[in-house]
Amino acid sequence: MKSDKLTFGILGGDKRNYYLAKALKNDGYEVKLCGFEKLSNMSCEVASALDSDVLVLPIIPFDKGKEVKSPYAEKTVDLSGYEDKLKGKKVFTGKREKFLSEFSGMEKETLSYSDREEFSVKNAVPTAEGAIEKAINSSDFTINGSKSLVCGYGRIGKVLSEMLRGMGSEVTVSARKSSDLAWIKLNSFQGVKTGYFSELEKYDLIFNTVPAMIFDEEKLKRIKSGALIIDLASYPGGVDFEKAKELGVKTIHALSLPGKVAPKSAGEIIESTILSILKEDDG
Amino acid sequence: MKSDKLTFGILGGDKRNYYLAKALKNDGYEVKLCGFEKLSNMSCEVASALDSDVLVLPIIPFDKGKEVKSPYAEKTVDLSGYEDKLKGKKVFTGKREKFLSEFSGMEKETLSYSDREEFSVKNAVPTAEGAIEKAINSSDFTINGSKSLVCGYGRIGKVLSEMLRGMGSEVTVSARKSSDLAWIKLNSFQGVKTGYFSELEKYDLIFNTVPAMIFDEEKLKRIKSGALIIDLASYPGGVDFEKAKELGVKTIHALSLPGKVAPKSAGEIIESTILSILKEDDG
Amino acid sequence: MKSDKLTFGILGGDKRNYYLAKALKNDGYEVKLCGFEKLSNMSCEVASALDSDVLVLPIIPFDKGKEVKSPYAEKTVDLSGYEDKLKGKKVFTGKREKFLSEFSGMEKETLSYSDREEFSVKNAVPTAEGAIEKAINSSDFTINGSKSLVCGYGRIGKVLSEMLRGMGSEVTVSARKSSDLAWIKLNSFQGVKTGYFSELEKYDLIFNTVPAMIFDEEKLKRIKSGALIIDLASYPGGVDFEKAKELGVKTIHALSLPGKVAPKSAGEIIESTILSILKEDDG
Amino acid sequence: MKSDKLTFGILGGDKRNYYLAKALKNDGYEVKLCGFEKLSNMSCEVASALDSDVLVLPIIPFDKGKEVKSPYAEKTVDLSGYEDKLKGKKVFTGKREKFLSEFSGMEKETLSYSDREEFSVKNAVPTAEGAIEKAINSSDFTINGSKSLVCGYGRIGKVLSEMLRGMGSEVTVSARKSSDLAWIKLNSFQGVKTGYFSELEKYDLIFNTVPAMIFDEEKLKRIKSGALIIDLASYPGGVDFEKAKELGVKTIHALSLPGKVAPKSAGEIIESTILSILKEDDG
Repeated sequence: MKSDKLTFGILGGDKRNYYLAKALKNDGYEVKLCGFEKLSNMSCEVASALDSDVLVLPIIPFDKGKEVKSPYAEKTVDLSGYEDKLKGKKVFTGKREKFLSEFSGMEKETLSYSDREEFSVKNAVPTAEGAIEKAINSSDFTINGSKSLVCGYGRIGKVLSEMLRGMGSEVTVSARKSSDLAWIKLNSFQGVKTGYFSELEKYDLIFNTVPAMIFDEEKLKRIKSGALIIDLASYPGGVDFEKAKELGVKTIHALSLPGKVAPKSAGEIIESTILSILKEDDG
Repeated sequence: MKSDKLTFGILGGDKRNYYLAKALKNDGYEVKLCGFEKLSNMSCEVASALDSDVLVLPIIPFDKGKEVKSPYAEKTVDLSGYEDKLKGKKVFTGKREKFLSEFSGMEKETLSYSDREEFSVKNAVPTAEGAIEKAINSSDFTINGSKSLVCGYGRIGKVLSEMLRGMGSEVTVSARKSSDLAWIKLNSFQGVKTGYFSELEKYDLIFNTVPAMIFDEEKLKRIKSGALIIDLASYPGGVDFEKAKELGVKTIHALSLPGKVAPKSAGEIIESTILSILKEDDG
Repeated sequence: MKSDKLTFGILGGDKRNYYLAKALKNDGYEVKLCGFEKLSNMSCEVASALDSDVLVLPIIPFDKGKEVKSPYAEKTVDLSGYEDKLKGKKVFTGKREKFLSEFSGMEKETLSYSDREEFSVKNAVPTAEGAIEKAINSSDFTINGSKSLVCGYGRIGKVLSEMLRGMGSEVTVSARKSSDLAWIKLNSFQGVKTGYFSELEKYDLIFNTVPAMIFDEEKLKRIKSGALIIDLASYPGGVDFEKAKELGVKTIHALSLPGKVAPKSAGEIIESTILSILKEDDG
Repeated sequence: MKSDKLTFGILGGDKRNYYLAKALKNDGYEVKLCGFEKLSNMSCEVASALDSDVLVLPIIPFDKGKEVKSPYAEKTVDLSGYEDKLKGKKVFTGKREKFLSEFSGMEKETLSYSDREEFSVKNAVPTAEGAIEKAINSSDFTINGSKSLVCGYGRIGKVLSEMLRGMGSEVTVSARKSSDLAWIKLNSFQGVKTGYFSELEKYDLIFNTVPAMIFDEEKLKRIKSGALIIDLASYPGGVDFEKAKELGVKTIHALSLPGKVAPKSAGEIIESTILSILKEDDG
């Protein structure tokens, strides 16, 4: 089947899936949107959407049983009773495993777009912008002229450290591997080994991207008064939030930023990732 | 009188003046703060604050008569009856003229810190950061990957265009003078003559810094659907806001950003400007 | 006279004038080139070139008497005897005063393109690139990772400091005015007052753009061993070169870089400046 | 053995090894240098140097037999007859395999510092700077304002594209993988798939880092007149140099830049890599 003839059924999800539908339409695909009555009059019935060649569910697809998460729906989007319609379809979600455990036994192909390197790289952008926005919003000083620390030099760390510098912060980046530290230095950041923060007291802004307990009591005690920690690592994060509260250290655990900060961009990232996967599949 | 022995009385104002007081204290000056009962227990009586060598009022000093604007006061900060205490003092406000019209006839020296080049340059930073924050917050797409237009290459235009690029936007800057356009080009921005926007339909984000009607009906009609205009020019701004509403063009008139976005930095900018003026005066 | 019908006579000069002629031709003008026999077979007789509406001489026009500097000529380009042909013509050179002192008494209009802000701004680019090239070429270390000092924040200082940062140097910039120092800081450079270099021993690369004796014996003695000073200020420069030699401090006095480093760009800068002047004149 | 007590013998090599010796000395190690009579009076006998704990030979160690490449030696540095002294020593060179094929049968440990990610990353810097220098030197236009193409987004491509942008070029980067293309785009470069250059005629500067025939006749024919190709890929490179000559396309095959452009930095990179290896070995 040629990918440019494919029809898409988008079932549930937040604004990202709404913008995904719009992006696909703009690119000339036939799209059926289901579970968005509150947002759009494009929204149609479950059965109709399931007739499409490619189905897209939310990143984390189900609330309970086979009910699709659909915050903008007026009617429940429930897949119960429609299992047959899924056979032979390409079904995309963000988390392959959850979907499979629910629908085990069916013959079909599920694909996780969030496993793709391309998706993760692009998604680092709205995450980093959300972090920048939090830093402007939740501090009483400017990023320009501040000293900031970015823990971790993975995708988000890379994007975020460049943006912070672009705003005029003096940025230190931490990493574990010596080759990462070499990159950090030649990209003109100050580098420090993650965990071995000799100058923790100098930073006005601290961003954590490492999914491990980095900022424990000992470290929190050394944070500069008035500084702000923004933790971007997924739950439970890398900060002892309770201790931080006790010690009066200001923290924000910022999760799921892409959908909040830039749902249109986030939807377009899902679109381009899905189209890439279908293209390869096709070729 | 040596400037490092000076005592300061801060009377009224918003958080900027509060942080100004803190910054002066940190630098070893004796400071009396008046009109901040809601924010700090440092706050003292009008008479006591007026005994200081240097007095600082809010940027726009008075509400009505001789009542000082003081949103964080529990008691009115009224200078009536204290005119004598002002004699021979150095009195700082943001707007020289207003103060003088109120207190005409007194012998004293008023100084406007906002007339200083140094102040305006530094103040461009929190303004630009506030604009960046609005752009992240009020759009559903990311700055990274967007196309943006900055109208005007004065202080704010210069800072803002660098920050937008630092975030990953493709930035066009407009100016009128050919030497400004030469700078724009060699700083690797696309340049266009202000008003002569041949590609207005391509920008996702438009920032105006020019205090003149730039975005009239004709131009508003050419704006890309979904684009956002952020007007940073002081009242009445450079956008026909009514027409924009009619045409469904999203606009934000963002005023007084430094005090809102970064009161601590804004207070420190006032401090360093005042100290520079006093130092020169001293020398 | 409409500027797009103008004919140009280019008489003498170095490769910049050669590329000026090519650029004008590419833009559709009729051009006569004189004094470039060694470089091009386009070259024609003096009398013929002087028939044009607009005449362009070298930046510093004369060698002796009325002989035009023309390093690429096989025959002398001598204006003697042709004075009448100059009457009523627009004559461009880089230095207004020298030309006038030679040809005093004639009725005509001479115009110095190098007086134009636009010219100086654009010309800062090849100068800064030439400085970067010297820094790579004449040192045994990389710019990336080095600490550099740029003295002066005029046009060249501004362009050069951005380029050095772009290469990965940690840049300090010096200036005298507090508003310049404010710009330096908010552009994320370290700032220092010109002459008051407290950390002179830390810089690997020092660039001077200030036309005054900055690096005297006292300062030269504090320069780091192995560091390189590149002086971009016009003769006699800002370095005590003799003392530097005595003390073993490596120095380069880099002059007239645009013509050497990027004659094509330099010629195009002359073209756009001349066309701007003619356009305004026209309007 | 504690790594900070180690003694080093540097045998032969170019200026990089000379600066390696100086760097080790500065860091407090005992160093014996052999084969540098023309450059330094520190130079000692082969036998004496071989008494050290750690031996460093040139990147490509031998000229013929067991004679070490030593362009700055007055006496041949020949290891014949000293094989016993190598036993149990740590011997570093740039290419593990060559050394081993020569000395097969000996009991010892050879280590190649150039296999280390850290070494390759850091070495990309002097390579990129050398390329920038060539671009300034060998073209008649400025990098600022030029359009450039960087083929390949490996280490050198990453460093070089940032530097070119830092100089003010409008940079397009090519890669093959979609995740690399995602990075290229979010780093605000224009991205293109390597080989699929739809706008080849627009670039003033083309840099190749890909070790494969990229610029064949078909592509060379589309290059803009006056453009410059700088090939950084190791022999035989990625350009059909003969065809280029025929077609009048200006090319430079720039090899071994680190040692030429910045021998001191290159030596320090070798030092830090060797010390890292020894430290890990130690732990």
